[in-house]
Amino acid sequence: MSRYEVRIGGFGGQGIVTMAVVLGETLSLIDNKYVVQTQSYGPEARGGASKSEVVIGDEEIDYPKVQRPDVFIAMSRAAYLEYVDGMREGGILIVDEDLVQIEGSLPSSVRVYKIPATRIADMEVGNKQTTNVVMLGALAAITGIVSVEGLKQRIAERWPRFKELNLKALELGLEAGRRAVESSQT
Amino acid sequence: MSRYEVRIGGFGGQGIVTMAVVLGETLSLIDNKYVVQTQSYGPEARGGASKSEVVIGDEEIDYPKVQRPDVFIAMSRAAYLEYVDGMREGGILIVDEDLVQIEGSLPSSVRVYKIPATRIADMEVGNKQTTNVVMLGALAAITGIVSVEGLKQRIAERWPRFKELNLKALELGLEAGRRAVESSQT
Repeated sequence: MSRYEVRIGGFGGQGIVTMAVVLGETLSLIDNKYVVQTQSYGPEARGGASKSEVVIGDEEIDYPKVQRPDVFIAMSRAAYLEYVDGMREGGILIVDEDLVQIEGSLPSSVRVYKIPATRIADMEVGNKQTTNVVMLGALAAITGIVSVEGLKQRIAERWPRFKELNLKALELGLEAGRRAVESSQT
Repeated sequence: MSRYEVRIGGFGGQGIVTMAVVLGETLSLIDNKYVVQTQSYGPEARGGASKSEVVIGDEEIDYPKVQRPDVFIAMSRAAYLEYVDGMREGGILIVDEDLVQIEGSLPSSVRVYKIPATRIADMEVGNKQTTNVVMLGALAAITGIVSVEGLKQRIAERWPRFKELNLKALELGLEAGRRAVESSQT
């Protein structure tokens, strides 16, 4: 993997910054990758779409901005519409299927995976604030870019008091991701 | 302010990522600036120095990396030694005085402010995890780059359950910053 680009888009309160930070920490501290993790904000951010980005490499990252994402995780309609353009041919689009409809023209080679992350967090984990960890699990299962063991270790280090809750969210996200991959292959 | 660069260096667990994220959110959501906020990690990050950066502008930021920081906040000796080179002439260096000694050659025009942020968080706020918020208050008092009212609003929004604790940390940091400015002028 010379360079791999992940973009996460959503709205305030969904924890997309934390999601990108935990992904970046796991990749660098545990999976021994180089990572640049970025948030860009304008004055229009409140109430609109926001995004976090992670650029991953085996060597030091020269250019920190995402150019054509390998993976785009869309967690709101506004973020989908704002950032879906520019996806790489053969890229991976992961959407929270309760919040995002596929609209407009995608390159036909883009693979789409639908994960009900907010619903899983709310109904199965019992805490909507774990939506971002559910989505991290789905990302790991779908792309394999980050180690599952690494995510478990980092989550346990980062949230010692909420470890069980977040590990449950991760596990359910992994299962949802695996199911999405299976159903895409049938 | 056409472009203003802030670098924060420390070790894992000091909350420097959160500090940079809260600073960036306040500047964009409340103070109407453009912000790019970045973490860069290599495999050597564990146990070593880590850094977070915030680039602030009145217009969209073209180049997201810090080139010569206007402000460098050093919260560990390793981070000080690794990142102090390249400070701008006339720049501002803020150190946690219990953790960082001024060593090596600084440009003579760099202004140094010593803030015992960890000690204030531990002894006066009563929670070492608020060290980053104490330092945010000091940064606001020393530089004026971010509005105090904005920080209060963002902290209250972000940590509703720990609002009082964090607002106390901010206030004590503001006071420490003001004292550091006064004593530098005598």
